Formats: sequence, structure tokens, C-alpha cells
Amino acid sequence: MDKTLPTRSENFSEWYNELIKRAGLAENAAVRGCMIIKPYGYAIWEKIQAVLDKAFKETGHENAYFPLFIPKSYLSREAAHVEGFAKECAVVTHYRLKNSEDGSQVVIDPAAKLEEELIVRPTSETIIWNSYKNWIQSYRDLPLLINQWSNVVRWEMRTRLFLRTTEILWQEGHTAHATRLEAEQETRQMLDLYADFGAAYLAIPFLKGRKTEHERFAGAEETYTIEALMQDGKALQAGTSHFLGQRFAKAFDVTFTNQAGQSEYVWGTSWGVTTRLIGALIMTHSDDKGLVLPPRLAPIQVVIIPIYKSQEEKAAIQQQAQSIQEALRAHHITVKLDDRDEYKPGWKFAEYELKGVPIRLAIGPKDLANQTVELTRRDTSEKSTISMDNVIRQVVSMLDNIQTSLYQRALKFRESHTCYVDDYQNFQEAIAQKQGFVLAHWDGSAETEKKIQADTKATIRCIPLEGTSETGKCIYTGRPSKQRVVFAQAY
Amino acid sequence: MDKTLPTRSENFSEWYNELIKRAGLAENAAVRGCMIIKPYGYAIWEKIQAVLDKAFKETGHENAYFPLFIPKSYLSREAAHVEGFAKECAVVTHYRLKNSEDGSQVVIDPAAKLEEELIVRPTSETIIWNSYKNWIQSYRDLPLLINQWSNVVRWEMRTRLFLRTTEILWQEGHTAHATRLEAEQETRQMLDLYADFGAAYLAIPFLKGRKTEHERFAGAEETYTIEALMQDGKALQAGTSHFLGQRFAKAFDVTFTNQAGQSEYVWGTSWGVTTRLIGALIMTHSDDKGLVLPPRLAPIQVVIIPIYKSQEEKAAIQQQAQSIQEALRAHHITVKLDDRDEYKPGWKFAEYELKGVPIRLAIGPKDLANQTVELTRRDTSEKSTISMDNVIRQVVSMLDNIQTSLYQRALKFRESHTCYVDDYQNFQEAIAQKQGFVLAHWDGSAETEKKIQADTKATIRCIPLEGTSETGKCIYTGRPSKQRVVFAQAY
Repeated sequence: MDKTLPTRSENFSEWYNELIKRAGLAENAAVRGCMIIKPYGYAIWEKIQAVLDKAFKETGHENAYFPLFIPKSYLSREAAHVEGFAKECAVVTHYRLKNSEDGSQVVIDPAAKLEEELIVRPTSETIIWNSYKNWIQSYRDLPLLINQWSNVVRWEMRTRLFLRTTEILWQEGHTAHATRLEAEQETRQMLDLYADFGAAYLAIPFLKGRKTEHERFAGAEETYTIEALMQDGKALQAGTSHFLGQRFAKAFDVTFTNQAGQSEYVWGTSWGVTTRLIGALIMTHSDDKGLVLPPRLAPIQVVIIPIYKSQEEKAAIQQQAQSIQEALRAHHITVKLDDRDEYKPGWKFAEYELKGVPIRLAIGPKDLANQTVELTRRDTSEKSTISMDNVIRQVVSMLDNIQTSLYQRALKFRESHTCYVDDYQNFQEAIAQKQGFVLAHWDGSAETEKKIQADTKATIRCIPLEGTSETGKCIYTGRPSKQRVVFAQAY
Repeated sequence: MDKTLPTRSENFSEWYNELIKRAGLAENAAVRGCMIIKPYGYAIWEKIQAVLDKAFKETGHENAYFPLFIPKSYLSREAAHVEGFAKECAVVTHYRLKNSEDGSQVVIDPAAKLEEELIVRPTSETIIWNSYKNWIQSYRDLPLLINQWSNVVRWEMRTRLFLRTTEILWQEGHTAHATRLEAEQETRQMLDLYADFGAAYLAIPFLKGRKTEHERFAGAEETYTIEALMQDGKALQAGTSHFLGQRFAKAFDVTFTNQAGQSEYVWGTSWGVTTRLIGALIMTHSDDKGLVLPPRLAPIQVVIIPIYKSQEEKAAIQQQAQSIQEALRAHHITVKLDDRDEYKPGWKFAEYELKGVPIRLAIGPKDLANQTVELTRRDTSEKSTISMDNVIRQVVSMLDNIQTSLYQRALKFRESHTCYVDDYQNFQEAIAQKQGFVLAHWDGSAETEKKIQADTKATIRCIPLEGTSETGKCIYTGRPSKQRVVFAQAY
């Protein structure tokens, strides 16, 4: 196998695809647009799940599970929702196959046609709100704070590993509240939770904002988003949190009796992140040598590679390596000792570089004699020789250090790829050169938004929650604008 | 709501259904045969998942994720497999809906017909072995030990909550090995792992055995099973582990180069358990008052209920209750303090009885004065008054005690509902009276097996791995038999 990756500057998109395959994260499945998540990639997802699941529970949410299939008629209950989702869904029409007459294959049994077609869920608002109708009677039943980890299907035309696939693994939170205020607070709380998780674990600074009406979730009154900036200057929507108002409550007739004894419609939210976060992770930190993983989500945090010529040498080094391994494990650090004879140290160095293991420890005969270890950090490739006495302390603090500096590096990248533009020509140039986030004034109309998109391929990523509230004039129409919004080309 | 459950002796089946609904474990979904797993039920599944996932990883398995959809043609690749699964599957034929001409609903877009239909996976052998073809080249790539947590769909005609549903949550292990022996050992290792888990966590004694050819998994050379006996005398298959031989390797052309440089077909296994385990749990331990949960899988292990008349009393008792709660939590025990004013203590007692919480602690004004707590264990309803000084120690040891005695009780039940029968008339009576496991001699032919089933509704649950290897004569044909097999009516 040719071990040289395409570089990011050569072809970012090919670099991304090849990296995912070579690092053993995922591959395309036989079914168009579907993905096989391989063990190394799935291990990252499991770490993401564990942290988020704990955070959801600490904020009072419980997990449940709703069915994969949605009766077709449910989709139509909320008018905007069906417009947004009906166009791209997998439809189950039959429930049995039979042998073909010549016996050469199996074919659909026409007798087994469903009376009403079933939709493979693209998202679960409809089936969940249909249940909430029975679960909620009184204010005592509220708030109802439910999350589920599930797979959803959206029939995408152009797919990319982790970024846009036909089947998606995700979590979807669906909550019901007695008041508008409480539902709004929940929406914002979950947005903040995602952003905090991004900063602390993914080492990605997410920009928080509201979506424009045009980019809003089908069925939401307000959609909040976390937007990240990739190394190629394109934006990636990494998660969303929706304030649903009373729309789904009205569509599915979910009411409750308030403390005063009156019947009211329930207020709703929904929020989700997907395996797309792994795509964000890759495109934010990795380099031309391979993956770079933040230590807190790396399936292997430290790899130890013994360097030896004879089996005698190996035995002595092995002992040292094992004692380091045990000591690190006692500090809850995930360590792999790769002592396979079939592969040479140089091969192993390249392999774990490709896999983004944050710290590599190499121990050779000289190290053994000097009671030292060679430590290499993946993010900067910096090498240092440290004494055995210090190795645990150094590794522990360096893992923290790598986690923090990845975040700082990504933040710096974003800052140096954020520009403020006040006229349309500069705007067009900035977008064409993929300079990153372009902050500009906009008149607030969907019409202008669409025209700018048609012209430049840039979309409004969000109306940012923090930062400048200065007024100005729309770059396209010259009409008044209340604040700058964030434009970019996006995945 | 009428709080009286049907009793087990009145109507076991209705008792089971009602119990699941009232305890808040699950409910039927709008889609035929599908189930909504509610938070309390899902919390049990999460506990089962956590323990099994850890055990799988400790035995060297890694998690991955393969797609939900299988191209129809894949199913046909293994002859026995397609016979077993093609008859009961959900078929996706289209990928888009559109508005109907009158705009009143959405309908299938005939232009969006798939070239090849997709099957919603009933199990993943075909799609996984199709990938293994690319993952395995050399003996160095073996063994390949993969598990996935997923949902599968089997279009069942008669469904029951947890026991048999159209969509099933489960785990499916799929492993590949260089030798027959190693694959056989893996098959048995996973069977033992399931049985050990059953004994230690579910508190269910599982009978281990081989399935007859007739009952074997479609595509396996040998199917091993764990069989449990429910309180109504019916058997429940609770999990299976399959030795696949080289069948899927041959069907998907998965070969490897052995150490001698020769090409060989790979040996395979697969094994799985589902949310059916929750059904087994309910039907093994619960009683006419509600659920009885083994402490190690109970979402709430201890509930504390303060008993008070005034808010002053409440405050004082509350303090005591909170200090117990904290102390128990420090021992990693899940405790709920239910201090809601809206519900009376009597209502709470019944509620947590229904929910199967293993230990209830009640604290009233008298207890406060005497520095005591009233402790009630759910499994026996035994009450005792214990001093505050002892409460932590007592609770910790009683949780262990309940866990063990539930297992002992279930084992005793099975022993008293296992009989040995040597002639067909006694056999028929034993089966008709649902006396449990009926051990009898059988001539080994599928023909006899089917005739006995047609006569009595009893199936051969398994050819047990342990116990009697005495020879005898088939109860039906009188032909020679090598060992007794286990008959029962089954779910």
C-alpha cells in the first residue's frame, strides 16, 4: 500500500477521504451513501457518546427508544416538517420476499404490500410527539426530558464519509415544557452544552448562533447552531438545537392542565449531534502525516514502542515498557504497548502517526542504559528525552498540554480566518478565496440571502449570539442591517 | 387508573402485558409490532448493555457499526440463510415522497424507485462477511472479533412486548478465525459468557445446550442456546451463539493466507442477545404486586420515603434521609429520595413495589425519635426496623442477599419444574400441564421432532450440554436415543 497521503493543500477532499480509510476509521458500504464505521472510528464515537450521555443525564434527561418506522401519514401532520423531510426518505412498501419462479433469486412478494407505507425515520419528532400525547396530562408530567441514541436515514444525493451519509448515527433530544420560557432556556442550555463539549473534548471552538429562517429546521420556530471552521476555510454545521414552540404540540394535540386547571398546548425543543462530529475532529486538527486526535477522545492516548535487535534486548526493554504501561494505566491513561516482531519500529512510528496517537514513547537499548525514554508528541512532532523517574508526570501533563494547545491552535486559525467585509466586491473575493468566516451586514430578507448564495455559494452560517451588535448597511441591497451575520461556504 | 394487576394464576399473559405498561417499562407503538421503550425500561437495557459491553471488551472484542440496509441480492448468497430470513423482512423500494396531486397528502414518487430493493437488516451476517472479504488477507488479520449494538427488523406476525417485536434492539457479535477449533471455542466462550451474565446479573439460571438441526440458525453449522424457564412453565430462548463453519466465508469468498502460505477459507461465529432479556427478567422474578428486579440491574436500588404530617416534621426527616442517601451513594448505590408532597406515602409504597425497587426505606417521626429506619425488601416483603448506625451496612448486605436469593428461588423453581418422562402418554400430560422442562429420549430425527410438536406444541428447547448422557429409547418411535433432550412449550 502506498503510504503517502495526498496533502491538504494539494487536494483537501482527497486527503480527507484517504485519511479516513488509511487510519481505519471508516469505509463506504456496498449500499450507496452508507458507511461502515470500523473499530478505531467507532471507539471515538463511543467516547463522544459516553461524555455527552453523562452530561445529558446530569442535566436531568433520560434515555428512551422510539421505533425506526414512522407511518407515512404522521409526516404530513406538521406542514413545514413534511416539506423538509418527505423529499429524502427511505420508504418501506412490503414486508416479505419470496423465491422467484425460476428459483434463481428472491423477489418482492406482491401479496405482502403494506396498507400504509412506512418511512424509515429521518428524525423522530412526529413519532415522539404522537406518544407525548398520551404521556402528558398535567403540569406534574412536565418537563419531560427525553433523549435517544439512534440511527436515522436521509436519502442524500451527494455523500461524504462522516459528513453526509444516508444512514446517520446520532442522538436526538426531545423535550416538552409547560412554558415558552422554560423551552427556550432548554434550547439554549443544550446549545451551550454542545459548545462546552466541543471546547473541552473535541478541542474545537464552536461559534454559536441562530439560523436564518431559510436555514431553519423544518418545523422549528428557531434553530440554534454550532458552526466550526475547517482547515480549508469551509464551515461545518456541527450540531443544532431547536425551539419548536407549540407547533408539534398543536400538530399532535398535546395539551396539559396547568396549575390553574386550564388546558394549554405544550412547548417543545429538539436537539442533536451526529457522527459528523468525527468529521469535524478530523478536518480541524489533522495534518499531512495523518490524524491528530485530542487526548480526551483518543482511543489510544499513549503508544509504547520497544526498539531492539535481539530477543534478549527485547526482554529487558519489555520489562521497562510494561512497568510504564502499568503506571500509566493506574492514572487512567489508555496505553498500547506494540511489541509485535512482525513490524519494524519505523513502520510502527508511521502507523501511530497516521492514527493520531497523541504521545509516542520509544525505548531502545541506549534508553535502557541511561534510564530514559524518548517522548514524541503527535501534534507538533517535538521530541524529548526524559528520565524514567519523570515519565509518568511528563506524560500526564503533556496530554493536558496537547489538549489545550489543539484548542488554542484551532481558535487562532479561526481568528486569522475571520474577516469583516463592508462591500459586495470584497465579499465575493473573500468567499471565492475561502478566507473562512466572513462577517457582513445583511438586510434580513430571504431573497437577498438566496441571491448572495446563487452568486457566491456562500450561505449564512448563523446570526451570532455573541460579539458585534453594530448596525450597518446590507452589502447586497444597501438596506439597513441590525448586526453582522456570518457567511461562508459550507459542507 | 385501576391499580390492581391481573394475577399470574388468573392470566399470566395479561399480567405480563399490564405489568409492563403500569411499571412504565414499554408500550406498543403506532406501527404494528413495534415497541416504545420508556425511560424506566430503557434504563434496565442500559445496565445490561454496560455489563455485557465490558465483558465483550475484556474478551478482546471491539465494537463497530455496519449499515441498516442490505442489498436484496446479498441475502441470497448463503442458501440456508435466505430461506430463514427472506420471509419476514421489511423491504425499501423507494427513496422519495412527493405531494399528491390534490395536495392533501404525501405519496410515493414513482420516479424514485430503487434499482435493487434494500432489506432492513434482520441480522447482519451477509453485510459483515461482505466486508470481511476486504479486511482479511493473512493469518495476521485473524482472529477478527467484532460486535455491534444495533436495531434489526423481522416482520413477525404475532408480537409481544420485549419477547417478539418487529424491531429489536440487540447486540450481534461476528467473529472470524483461522481454525475450526478456535471458532468453536469462541462460540462456546460467548455462550458461557451469556450464561454467567444471566446467573450473576439477571439472577436467571440458564440451561445451556445445542439446538436441533430443525431449530438451528439459518446458515449455522451448530447453534447453541441459553434456555430459561418462566413462571408459567413455558420456556424462553434467551440468547444464541452460532458456529458458522466456513459457510459465510464460502458464500462471500473470504479467504486468508495461512502461516504456510496457503489460502484457506475463514471460520466464523455469530452470537446475540436482545431486549428479550428484559422479558425474561420480568417473567422469572416478578409477582402479583408488580416487578421484582435483581439489585444489580435495578435502575433504582433503594427508595427512601419520608413520612410526615407537617412541613416541620418533613424538614427534620428530610435531613436524616439525605444523609442516608449520600452515604449510600458513596457506596455506589442508586438511591431515590421521593419527598414529593403531591403523593401520599401509601401511594408511593405501591408505586415502588410496582416498579420493583429492591429496598424501601421509610422514615417517620417515630423513627426519627428512635434513630431507626423501617426497611422493606421487595422480593419477600419482609420488614425490619434497623438502627441508623447500621443502615448502610444492612442495605449493602441485603442488596447482595436479594440478588442471591432471587437466583436461588429461580433455580429451585426450575428444579421443581423439571421432570423425566419415559413414555409418550406421560409426556403429553406433562406438556399439557405446562410442568416446565420435560427431559425425554428422542430418536434424533427431524420427522419425530415435528410430529411431537404437531401433537403437543412442545419443541425441543435444546440438547443439554451438561447432565445425563444415559442412553434410552425415543418416547415417540421407540428407536434408540443417545441422551435425553429438553422439551417444553416455548415463547
